[in-house]
Amino acid sequence: MSEVLHLYPDRFLGQTGEIRSVARRLFTEVESLPIISPHGHTEPRWFADNKVFDNPTDLLIVPDHYIFRMLYSQGVSLESLRIPIAGNESKVGPLEAWGIFADYYYLFQGTPTRIWLDYVFYEVFGLRDVLSAKTAQQYYEKISHQLKMDALRPRAILDRFNIEFLATTDGALDSLQSHQNIARAGFGHRVVPTFRPDSVTDPDCPGFFDNVARLSEITGEEATTWNGYLSALKNRREFFKSHGATATDHGHPSAHTSDLSNIECQKLFAKCLRGDADAQEKEYFRGQMLTEMAAMSLDDGLVMQLHVGVSRNHNKQLFNRFGQDKGADIPIPMEFVEGLKPLLQRFGNESSLSVILFTLDESTYSRELAPLAGHYPCLRLGPAWWFHDSPEGMMRYRQQVSETAGFYNTVGFNDDTRALFSIPARHDLARRIDCQFLAGWVVQRRLSEDQALLLAKDLAYRLPKDAYKVEQ
Amino acid sequence: MSEVLHLYPDRFLGQTGEIRSVARRLFTEVESLPIISPHGHTEPRWFADNKVFDNPTDLLIVPDHYIFRMLYSQGVSLESLRIPIAGNESKVGPLEAWGIFADYYYLFQGTPTRIWLDYVFYEVFGLRDVLSAKTAQQYYEKISHQLKMDALRPRAILDRFNIEFLATTDGALDSLQSHQNIARAGFGHRVVPTFRPDSVTDPDCPGFFDNVARLSEITGEEATTWNGYLSALKNRREFFKSHGATATDHGHPSAHTSDLSNIECQKLFAKCLRGDADAQEKEYFRGQMLTEMAAMSLDDGLVMQLHVGVSRNHNKQLFNRFGQDKGADIPIPMEFVEGLKPLLQRFGNESSLSVILFTLDESTYSRELAPLAGHYPCLRLGPAWWFHDSPEGMMRYRQQVSETAGFYNTVGFNDDTRALFSIPARHDLARRIDCQFLAGWVVQRRLSEDQALLLAKDLAYRLPKDAYKVEQ
Amino acid sequence: MSEVLHLYPDRFLGQTGEIRSVARRLFTEVESLPIISPHGHTEPRWFADNKVFDNPTDLLIVPDHYIFRMLYSQGVSLESLRIPIAGNESKVGPLEAWGIFADYYYLFQGTPTRIWLDYVFYEVFGLRDVLSAKTAQQYYEKISHQLKMDALRPRAILDRFNIEFLATTDGALDSLQSHQNIARAGFGHRVVPTFRPDSVTDPDCPGFFDNVARLSEITGEEATTWNGYLSALKNRREFFKSHGATATDHGHPSAHTSDLSNIECQKLFAKCLRGDADAQEKEYFRGQMLTEMAAMSLDDGLVMQLHVGVSRNHNKQLFNRFGQDKGADIPIPMEFVEGLKPLLQRFGNESSLSVILFTLDESTYSRELAPLAGHYPCLRLGPAWWFHDSPEGMMRYRQQVSETAGFYNTVGFNDDTRALFSIPARHDLARRIDCQFLAGWVVQRRLSEDQALLLAKDLAYRLPKDAYKVEQ
Repeated sequence: MSEVLHLYPDRFLGQTGEIRSVARRLFTEVESLPIISPHGHTEPRWFADNKVFDNPTDLLIVPDHYIFRMLYSQGVSLESLRIPIAGNESKVGPLEAWGIFADYYYLFQGTPTRIWLDYVFYEVFGLRDVLSAKTAQQYYEKISHQLKMDALRPRAILDRFNIEFLATTDGALDSLQSHQNIARAGFGHRVVPTFRPDSVTDPDCPGFFDNVARLSEITGEEATTWNGYLSALKNRREFFKSHGATATDHGHPSAHTSDLSNIECQKLFAKCLRGDADAQEKEYFRGQMLTEMAAMSLDDGLVMQLHVGVSRNHNKQLFNRFGQDKGADIPIPMEFVEGLKPLLQRFGNESSLSVILFTLDESTYSRELAPLAGHYPCLRLGPAWWFHDSPEGMMRYRQQVSETAGFYNTVGFNDDTRALFSIPARHDLARRIDCQFLAGWVVQRRLSEDQALLLAKDLAYRLPKDAYKVEQ
Repeated sequence: MSEVLHLYPDRFLGQTGEIRSVARRLFTEVESLPIISPHGHTEPRWFADNKVFDNPTDLLIVPDHYIFRMLYSQGVSLESLRIPIAGNESKVGPLEAWGIFADYYYLFQGTPTRIWLDYVFYEVFGLRDVLSAKTAQQYYEKISHQLKMDALRPRAILDRFNIEFLATTDGALDSLQSHQNIARAGFGHRVVPTFRPDSVTDPDCPGFFDNVARLSEITGEEATTWNGYLSALKNRREFFKSHGATATDHGHPSAHTSDLSNIECQKLFAKCLRGDADAQEKEYFRGQMLTEMAAMSLDDGLVMQLHVGVSRNHNKQLFNRFGQDKGADIPIPMEFVEGLKPLLQRFGNESSLSVILFTLDESTYSRELAPLAGHYPCLRLGPAWWFHDSPEGMMRYRQQVSETAGFYNTVGFNDDTRALFSIPARHDLARRIDCQFLAGWVVQRRLSEDQALLLAKDLAYRLPKDAYKVEQ
Repeated sequence: MSEVLHLYPDRFLGQTGEIRSVARRLFTEVESLPIISPHGHTEPRWFADNKVFDNPTDLLIVPDHYIFRMLYSQGVSLESLRIPIAGNESKVGPLEAWGIFADYYYLFQGTPTRIWLDYVFYEVFGLRDVLSAKTAQQYYEKISHQLKMDALRPRAILDRFNIEFLATTDGALDSLQSHQNIARAGFGHRVVPTFRPDSVTDPDCPGFFDNVARLSEITGEEATTWNGYLSALKNRREFFKSHGATATDHGHPSAHTSDLSNIECQKLFAKCLRGDADAQEKEYFRGQMLTEMAAMSLDDGLVMQLHVGVSRNHNKQLFNRFGQDKGADIPIPMEFVEGLKPLLQRFGNESSLSVILFTLDESTYSRELAPLAGHYPCLRLGPAWWFHDSPEGMMRYRQQVSETAGFYNTVGFNDDTRALFSIPARHDLARRIDCQFLAGWVVQRRLSEDQALLLAKDLAYRLPKDAYKVEQ
């Protein structure tokens, strides 16, 4: 007999009956609020083309680095999971890979990946046994069967999941063709792009010079000069904005910012373009570009997101064989107080600017981020990110941030995922944890239940809409 | 209808009935113990002059950087809150500012500031509605009315709040005139000064040279020579001690200490006085002065407090306009193990010396501070400080410190406040959290309830008295 | 009347009845599983000679730095506790020292030391009063009396405590004579050595040159040349392995690793041997030796343990008088991501290599260690170490590590102790905390109770056996 899969209604609502009963009342009120997904990595072409998904493995395993990092850590090869080598299609069949995944499903015991997947299996695909070697084939068939149905095409999914707003993340050079098609299909206010310019603002990005050259072509600006480069970036921001973008996103190794003179900027940019810049100069350039982006945000109103503090592609062997986003990105210690100072000296007091900060170094929550966000008008704190987007991680975030930053300097939840089917699972979990956290404060008589309910609704719905300037 | 303000008797005593019932029994025994306030920032002239307070705004908002940092972070200008610009009296009326504060009171939902203020409103001023736009005027009038009564004059407050001992914080050059007047009024053992010499020991303090010159004048020592300088400092310490001081306090950017030769000290001091010292030399000088202060403490018995790890006045625009202590001080990562080594090499084994350490970097609690305090006879740990003087913060402090340092290397609570009326609110909250923490251990059978009760009393009363050498 | 000593059956199983009832069921199933003690510091000669222990003080106090660091922090001299000065036998009698310990026993209120000792007093020696000034003499006599019995000789203890496997920690130059005698007595598979080569791989170790010379003598290799040195180390590893060792252990100040060319290695080694290497070169050498050890582990299959991040003998005065391991080792901030990179670039993808990481910097749990172990096949995480081997510390470890690393990249518990009698106390506590943690997840519906039970058994028994390659 296989183990029964069940989603208990009171899951993640608290460790005691007293908290759970308050949390349940709060959760009942926020459970069905529409989903605002202001930062994530789904593919715009899914919504543009609206095709059915191929098979369970290519939908649920191959794009999900959470899954194969765990399997890999226990000696499962990426090849066997159908991960393409150097972009070539894998020779491993999808059912075979699915079987391996099922064999090792026990490794995810208690991890967020398992919580999300079990929700998808249960709620989306109606499965009622736990995934295991025994049930692998049955899972594969049932999911395959359902994936062929129109109800699971990407646009139908938006309705089914009650997704009111979803932002993708798109390179600065992207034509936004898919987004144009989405708009043509009438989904333009619901699925929007986000301007992510790292490939043209980070001299360490592969092909930096070519990217800047391409920026000239696209915009008709002389992007190889400092002023032309800035104009070209403004131009692209406008282009993204005209396609519905409300935000930019910046993935930098550190939170370092610079505020150099125009002449210094020109020299530094030239050096970066020539490939002559050393590590520190490149750091300064990236830092300068954050300050420039803040200046542009002040003009065009795009919200600025800052995701910092990861050593990308730490495992070089793996990177050379399989490419990026294969589960080998590792967080590093972060520093925000000195790093952000140059940007904040210029724009920190602008309350019409909005900079949302994300960290993977939890020691910065109470030490730096909450005090910064609890003072500077331009700063807001993004939710617990990536490895910390988990029950314990979200709880630590609320515990360490709320007292100094207050709830209203935070921005609700980001699912930040490329796993489309897991979006409701992630929002469900985040709302449960927030309700649990608030219920704990109600039980301590720190909030009245009415106050907690208002906060629960704001965290689930109003704050992300406001913070990302989603149109009403 | 406005929301009802109520202080529940069991607030902050635990998240479960089991813990709460133990915590309630413990709290009943410590609730009315006299308040020992060995470190804080109330104004000595209040107690010297014993005047009534002007109005609710100037009493409760204008001096409280916790309040206006939060409002400022959400776009409320400091001008509108009656904060003086460059020391000039504000043109905003106190009632107007109070109204803005009331409009934004929801921002403090669940923050320590709100917990303290609600206590003050309820317990001190007898208010029974929650502060809001609707109740703002009524609040202002009721508080104004009561502030005129003798029962709320500063000295009466000491009795009403059951404050047995209160230390202010006073610059090394202070005449202590207010403290002399306090003594004359018979409150000399109850309200005492603390020797805070940063203005003459930190070359980065504005007017450092003038301050040292003034030190010469006051003491008759040649304070511009190294030996004269040390004598002058000893002289001032004696002066403070003769006015009841039991402690010194040092607010340094880092925990760096030095132990240089006499000749090096002379050179370094001369360089600092000339204004020639670079950042590192100033750091060394400050570090040397901590070691010198420890040497003097060993002689004169003053307890030494070390508050380190803040980037002061991080927002330069705001600082230039409004001055210091405006909510723009941000914690930075700290390091104690190497930093304190030179001082500890010389005096660490002296059990008659007492150095109390405070941090804003919670990652140092379990990693550095608890292990250091659990070994060196001269070290004690101050309570959760500033941003961490909060329910979650105090709980983390106990959880991360107690197992390695033990309770008896900690020193009870410091309210550390300039908000006189909030002192009982802060001690009330700290005692509740300690009782909750101890009750959690009782429930786990880690302490017997008798042991917990003894600890609760020690943390609330005996430890601060002993640690700060308060006379019996 | 003295206070009653009692061990409650439900201690450390949770703060609520709901959690406790699940945890109790889990604990019942793991409570009597055999003890696997794969890393610790008991003396092999105890098991080789199988003599009775002298007296309570020399057994329980003198070797236990947890005890005297706490007493010392409150002004108790080490002399008075019978700690030998410079290796000379103390003039303080064991009963006298015991009395001082008893006087100050209240300092340990709620600390792990007290939890362990109370277990030993209650379970091993059958004492039923709390240790205090009043009961000190009675304690001393009762313990002394029992220590004379055969049932408390070292080998009998192994049976009584249900210890299936115990590894000691032994210097690379050790003759393993005791281990040979242990094997001769038929305990060779139960008590094994661990290869700890710091004295010949760390140029900062006292007598480094002499140690390397001795390595030549023992192995017949020319250990003063780089290649001979490597051969000699391989030789010693084989020797240890032939005496039952399954693991090596490396105590380094940092997690820095190097991957230098053969010619660079030769030069660096020569410089270290000549005593000419500066601090950074020594750091590189130690780092290189970790990489070399990983290479050898890949060949000979020994599991590699890495204990990093302590400032050893921080208190020089104390060190000069009493030597090492006197409670003055203080953790420092750690960094693993850059530090381990060179080693991981070479061997990170080898799933037949096993490197177990330990940290004293809890901020690295969720930031660096869990993400690293949740990706690299060669990495596993050791349990909460030293100061964090405590109820709160173990709970933080599980909370911060489990979601990203999963349970199966951890290795169960290490008691890591030289206090032989406390081994069951420590495993008992660790199992209780794990059951409490798992029960909390069951109550949240995050795990089924069946899943939790399987995990509880794996954490208590199977994982340490597998991770340390203990023979079945």
